[in-house]
Amino acid sequence: MTHLILALDFGGSKHTAAVAEAGGRDWQGHARAYSPPGADARADIEVMLGLARQVLGGAQPAAIGVSFGGPVHFGSGLVRRSDHVPGWDDAPLAEIVAKEMGAPAVVDNDANAGAIGEHIYGAGQGHAHMLYVTVSTGVGGGWILNNASWRGVDEMAGEIGHTVIDPDGPRCLCGKHGCVERLASGPFLAEDARAILASQPGRGALLRQLAGGDPQAIDGALLSRAATEGDEVAQEVLRRGARALGIGIGNAANLVNPSLAVVGGGVTRAGEIWWSALQEAVAGTLIAGARLEVVPAALGDDAPLWGALALGAGLLK
Amino acid sequence: MTHLILALDFGGSKHTAAVAEAGGRDWQGHARAYSPPGADARADIEVMLGLARQVLGGAQPAAIGVSFGGPVHFGSGLVRRSDHVPGWDDAPLAEIVAKEMGAPAVVDNDANAGAIGEHIYGAGQGHAHMLYVTVSTGVGGGWILNNASWRGVDEMAGEIGHTVIDPDGPRCLCGKHGCVERLASGPFLAEDARAILASQPGRGALLRQLAGGDPQAIDGALLSRAATEGDEVAQEVLRRGARALGIGIGNAANLVNPSLAVVGGGVTRAGEIWWSALQEAVAGTLIAGARLEVVPAALGDDAPLWGALALGAGLLK
Repeated sequence: MTHLILALDFGGSKHTAAVAEAGGRDWQGHARAYSPPGADARADIEVMLGLARQVLGGAQPAAIGVSFGGPVHFGSGLVRRSDHVPGWDDAPLAEIVAKEMGAPAVVDNDANAGAIGEHIYGAGQGHAHMLYVTVSTGVGGGWILNNASWRGVDEMAGEIGHTVIDPDGPRCLCGKHGCVERLASGPFLAEDARAILASQPGRGALLRQLAGGDPQAIDGALLSRAATEGDEVAQEVLRRGARALGIGIGNAANLVNPSLAVVGGGVTRAGEIWWSALQEAVAGTLIAGARLEVVPAALGDDAPLWGALALGAGLLK
Repeated sequence: MTHLILALDFGGSKHTAAVAEAGGRDWQGHARAYSPPGADARADIEVMLGLARQVLGGAQPAAIGVSFGGPVHFGSGLVRRSDHVPGWDDAPLAEIVAKEMGAPAVVDNDANAGAIGEHIYGAGQGHAHMLYVTVSTGVGGGWILNNASWRGVDEMAGEIGHTVIDPDGPRCLCGKHGCVERLASGPFLAEDARAILASQPGRGALLRQLAGGDPQAIDGALLSRAATEGDEVAQEVLRRGARALGIGIGNAANLVNPSLAVVGGGVTRAGEIWWSALQEAVAGTLIAGARLEVVPAALGDDAPLWGALALGAGLLK
C-alpha cells in the first residue's frame, strides 16, 4: 500500500499544491494559483485548500508538508508573521491544514524547506553539509548539517540576508545598515539602479530605453536584460549585488565550512555577469584551506515544495 | 582504577602541560614554560615533553589530549602549519607525542579545544550550541553544536576572524580587506592607535605619556590602561575593535543561532569600555527573534588546556 503526501507552498502571492507518493520522485498532481487582490491569511488558506483538493482528486493524504514564505515555529506549526500578507500573526497553520485535510501536518519556512528540497531531490544530493540561499524579494537561507535541517536554538538559523557586511552602508528594511539583503535583493538592486539613473543623467541609456522612460518599471528581469545587452549601469548594479551576496556566502562558509552552497531565487536568473561576480566574491572571501562549491538551484521555484514533500513524508517515519 | 589524562597546550610561545584523572575537574599537576629564543618545532616539542614528564612524575598517562595554536588535521593528528614557529608544516604531532609518552594522543587546534574546554568546564556548561571566540594576536573561533565540536568538511569551521565586515576596509594579513581579525585583534588595535597618534598630533596625550613617548611600546595592555584612565584615542580604538568583533559575532549568530557566545583572549581584558561596545554591537546586529548571550570565558588562557583534557579523556570511551 502506498501513502500519498500532500505538499503545500505558501509563497508571498503565489501558492502551489502538489501530491506524490511517499518515497516517490514524481508529482501525481501539481497546481498553482495566485492570491486574490487584497488577500489576507484566510483568503490565502482558502485558495490553498482548493488547490489541495484539486490535486488530490478525492484521495486521502497520509501526511502533509507545508512551506511558508516567512518565519514559523517549526515545532508547534505556528506561523510567526508574514511581511507581505495581513492576518498571519501566530496563525496555527499546521493545525488548520491538518484539520481540514484529515492528516498530520508539519510547517517550515521556505528557506529551510528549500534547503531540504535541494538536498534530497536537487543540486545538493550527496552533500551532508550545505547552505541553501534564495535571492529574490529578500535573501533567505537554510542549512543542512549532517544530512538534517539545522534550525538553531530559536529556529532562526540561516539568516544570511541579515548578516552585515558594510556597517556604514545603506539602511536595510530591518533597520541595520549594510545587510546582505539590502545590498543583494532584487527590489534594492532596482532601487540602486534608479538612484544611479537619477544622479548620473549621462549613463544607462539602454536601461532607460528598456524601461520606457519610467524608472519605476525597472525590476530584476529588466536589469538582467539590460546587462546582457551591454548596459553598464545594469551591469554595475548586478555585479555589486552579486559581490555582496558572495561575501555573505564566503563568510558563512568560513564560519561553518559546508561543502556546497546552492543558490536559487529570481535574481539568480540575472545571467552570466551576475554569476561570475558571485563566484569571484566567494573565492575572494573563502579562507585558504576551505573549499566551497557554489551552484545554481536545480529545482527552481519549486525547491520549497519538494522540501515540503520530504517534510510530510518524514511524519510517517 | 583511575586513568590519568595528560593535557598539552602548544601556544605561540608559551607551552603548558597538566595532568588530571579522567572524569576529574582538578589538575594533579600543571607546569608552564616559554619557548627558547629562536625555537623551531623540534625545540618546542622538547620543551613540552620535559613539562609532561615533570607533571606526570613517573606516572603513565592512559591518553593524551593536545591543543595546538594553529591549523591541524584533527582526524590524522597532523599539524598543518604554524604562523609563528618554523618547522611545523605537516608535523605528525599526535604520533610523536603518542610514541614518546606511550599512550594514544589526539590533536585539535586551540580554538576548537577552547570551545570544548569552556563547554565542559567553563562558561558554556549547559549550552548545547555555542560559539567560542578568542581575541588576542589573532581572532579565532570554535563551535559546539549538539554538544559536540563542529569542525566542518575541511576542519576549517569557526574562522570568524576571517569573515569580512568591511570589504573596502584596511588590508588583513590574509590579503583580504576588512576581516574581523584586521579590525579587532590586539596588534592591529595597537597599529590603529599609532596611526591616529601619528596623524593627529593634538590627540592622545595620556596614551603618548604612558607609552613613554615610544609609539612602538603601545600594546593591548597599554591601550586598556590608557582607555580606563580616560584617553580618548585609546577608547576610540578599543570601541572600534569591539564593534567589529560584535558585528562578526552577531553575523555568526544570525547564521547559526546558538544560545551563547563565550569570548576570551587577551583583548577581552581591555575592560568595561570594550565589553559594553561589544555587547552593543552584538545586540545591534542580531536579527529580531534570535537571542544570544555573550559572556567572558571562565577558564582564561587555560581554556584550550581544559579542552585537551576532555579530548584526551574522549579517547578512553
